[in-house]
Amino acid sequence: MNGRPEVVATYLVESYLPLEHAAEVIAGEQSTGTFVAVARETAELREQFAARVVAIEELPPTDHGDLPGIIRPPGAQRRSGQVQIAFGLDNFGPSLPNLLAAVAGNLFELRQLAGIRLLDLDLPLAFAERYPGPQYGVTGTRELLQRPDGVLLGTIVKPSIGLPVEELRILVRELAEAGIDFIKDDELMGNPPHSPLADRVAVVTEELDKIAARTGRRPMYAFNITDDLDRMAANHDLVRDAGGTCVLVCVNLIGLAGLAWLRQRCELPIHGHRAMTGVFTRAPGLGIDFVAWSKLARLAGADHLHTNGLSNKFYETDEQVLRSITAVQQPLFDPAAPGSAYETLPVLSSGQSPGLAPETYRRTNTTDLLVLAGGGIHGHPDGPAAGVTAMRTAWHSATTGTDLLTAAATTPALHQALKTFGTPRA
Amino acid sequence: MNGRPEVVATYLVESYLPLEHAAEVIAGEQSTGTFVAVARETAELREQFAARVVAIEELPPTDHGDLPGIIRPPGAQRRSGQVQIAFGLDNFGPSLPNLLAAVAGNLFELRQLAGIRLLDLDLPLAFAERYPGPQYGVTGTRELLQRPDGVLLGTIVKPSIGLPVEELRILVRELAEAGIDFIKDDELMGNPPHSPLADRVAVVTEELDKIAARTGRRPMYAFNITDDLDRMAANHDLVRDAGGTCVLVCVNLIGLAGLAWLRQRCELPIHGHRAMTGVFTRAPGLGIDFVAWSKLARLAGADHLHTNGLSNKFYETDEQVLRSITAVQQPLFDPAAPGSAYETLPVLSSGQSPGLAPETYRRTNTTDLLVLAGGGIHGHPDGPAAGVTAMRTAWHSATTGTDLLTAAATTPALHQALKTFGTPRA
Repeated sequence: MNGRPEVVATYLVESYLPLEHAAEVIAGEQSTGTFVAVARETAELREQFAARVVAIEELPPTDHGDLPGIIRPPGAQRRSGQVQIAFGLDNFGPSLPNLLAAVAGNLFELRQLAGIRLLDLDLPLAFAERYPGPQYGVTGTRELLQRPDGVLLGTIVKPSIGLPVEELRILVRELAEAGIDFIKDDELMGNPPHSPLADRVAVVTEELDKIAARTGRRPMYAFNITDDLDRMAANHDLVRDAGGTCVLVCVNLIGLAGLAWLRQRCELPIHGHRAMTGVFTRAPGLGIDFVAWSKLARLAGADHLHTNGLSNKFYETDEQVLRSITAVQQPLFDPAAPGSAYETLPVLSSGQSPGLAPETYRRTNTTDLLVLAGGGIHGHPDGPAAGVTAMRTAWHSATTGTDLLTAAATTPALHQALKTFGTPRA
Repeated sequence: MNGRPEVVATYLVESYLPLEHAAEVIAGEQSTGTFVAVARETAELREQFAARVVAIEELPPTDHGDLPGIIRPPGAQRRSGQVQIAFGLDNFGPSLPNLLAAVAGNLFELRQLAGIRLLDLDLPLAFAERYPGPQYGVTGTRELLQRPDGVLLGTIVKPSIGLPVEELRILVRELAEAGIDFIKDDELMGNPPHSPLADRVAVVTEELDKIAARTGRRPMYAFNITDDLDRMAANHDLVRDAGGTCVLVCVNLIGLAGLAWLRQRCELPIHGHRAMTGVFTRAPGLGIDFVAWSKLARLAGADHLHTNGLSNKFYETDEQVLRSITAVQQPLFDPAAPGSAYETLPVLSSGQSPGLAPETYRRTNTTDLLVLAGGGIHGHPDGPAAGVTAMRTAWHSATTGTDLLTAAATTPALHQALKTFGTPRA
């Protein structure tokens, strides 16, 4: 350490080599090294540019399978550890793509590693100077929705694709009249010939204008503008010009660099969908953890970010989901530095229904959440409007300490939802 | 099938459910489905938009570990299969990001799957209409290099980072004088404060201008322009305006959408580096295979694409590398359709040295390859120029059927290289 700004990357490293050796291989490959000593690689150059192993904490053995192609000396023991490596910022400068070349470039292919996962990133403030991050975040989203408190309640248009636009109009009207805060396109619904974005924008904003004129409150609709980048920018302009108040992008599908590029041009909150994150996260001994990934997505400008919800239909445990929600709520930089919050709204989605409200509130202890129920609203036996009422009542009960079954006794929509989707968990 | 254009995705699916069931879960999640039946999901809508399981071929059991969070009914047997699913193109249109939402979106997170890997993609010609693909490819690169035949020979600037620009000048001069075809920045070397791209472009093009004036042949230097997108475009312009003839981008770090965006603006061959591809490819039961990934990168416009080389220092076997090289050489669309070739030059890199030439030539049976030796040239005991001579002689011998040891008897640089880096493999 010599006072120069550094990026500190934390990895899970698994190896049949001593962890110190494995860590040095990563540091070498990702900074000054190649497989043989080369001319012009002076001691001074290494001193200034070599990545540095900061800490190694040995962990109990894991049951993660070995990655293929590994070096495994006969009789060697498999070790797992949390390894921190510091990279001088001057090696690449405060650029997301160039940062990734160093902290995540070739290292997943190293034969010395039986497991390698980027867990977390500690970034210097130079990144804050280049990347403004969320433009609206929690506060800005609440202002647009005129919901200063309470959980924000949303849904996804279902069926995901194929819904004729005039059916979409009726659905949006019904949901808006039921008092929903937020509606989003499915991530599968881009700008296809059978339902052009321009048509969806036209009918949806017309309906939302009407409800806003009548009630004074305008639900937010996140139009999926994911597309090739110039088209995405044009999609954004289309939404903005029509008076839309939110755009959705699939962060991994446009890329972090694509998101940062959009952020520079964007005038609306960016709803960050996490489609394809499973490729990075699901193999426990490989990839990029949500904690590290979400920091990059927030830096690039995501106002909302999908974390999954409790009891979701996907692979993650409740503990993983809670860790993701917490991650999104942490300041991105040293909390003492002004503007370090990079306030992003966690989006709880997948398999969400009213019965999950008490436990979700108890375990997150916040209402700064956007809770999306797709099937949990559209699948309500009395229709989507009853689904919204059930969700709203459930969250109101949870946050005011009212027992959900008590509330259900006087709210038929909630009673019906609990019967259909399941009663509260203990 | 009803004559409408479709995308056919091929997956490795592993599951404790019947493969037919697992395949239907993927098709449902990635098109019209949610976790409960919803209003407005009519039979007609499903008929038109539901993805369709085309084929299931059961495979022998694998030793891939189970992904976490899976559904495993008691006593159920683990099955592996190759599954083909067809998606109507109208579900998303010919857009790379929106295609990915369907064929790779949430499916990696499904609990029904103990393993899930996207192996290949069969794309309709509508994609060729939107994406022009490689602008130079093999032919254009050969023309720029004035090398109508023979393997193309290159190297990487080493040390990767930290080399003062005046040292870079000397290195480039030495390599150019030794007759190298191609030199590239390391993927770690972007536009950092210690070695600004503008400075590198200035000294390198000055040296290459001199060698071109003297010999009539100008080696190609791939400047790493990877950066935030607007900066990347400016980097491209800087290289072009200085008379540079190639740009390097890390495809995964700018994203496929970022690459397609660059392609629209780019006037130079795009050297596609594969940093971070290991995240997609290394877990055998998860991710996106190089075969599928490379198709997307070629569609987005990569003129050159890294495949690794035989005996590389990373995890892949020779068989995997050969499969990757073959993949890059295949036409991207129906070979009968005009312009379907999407000719991309395979780049063999990592641990390459002269001794590998005979086997590489025998197993690829082509010289339409760009072979990069980093350490194998810079680490030559007699310096980089001797390293170039050794590589050139080795490849000349291999392609003319001369025994390498015979050639080494009259070429001291090759003799020394074989002694240092290893003799030819049987």
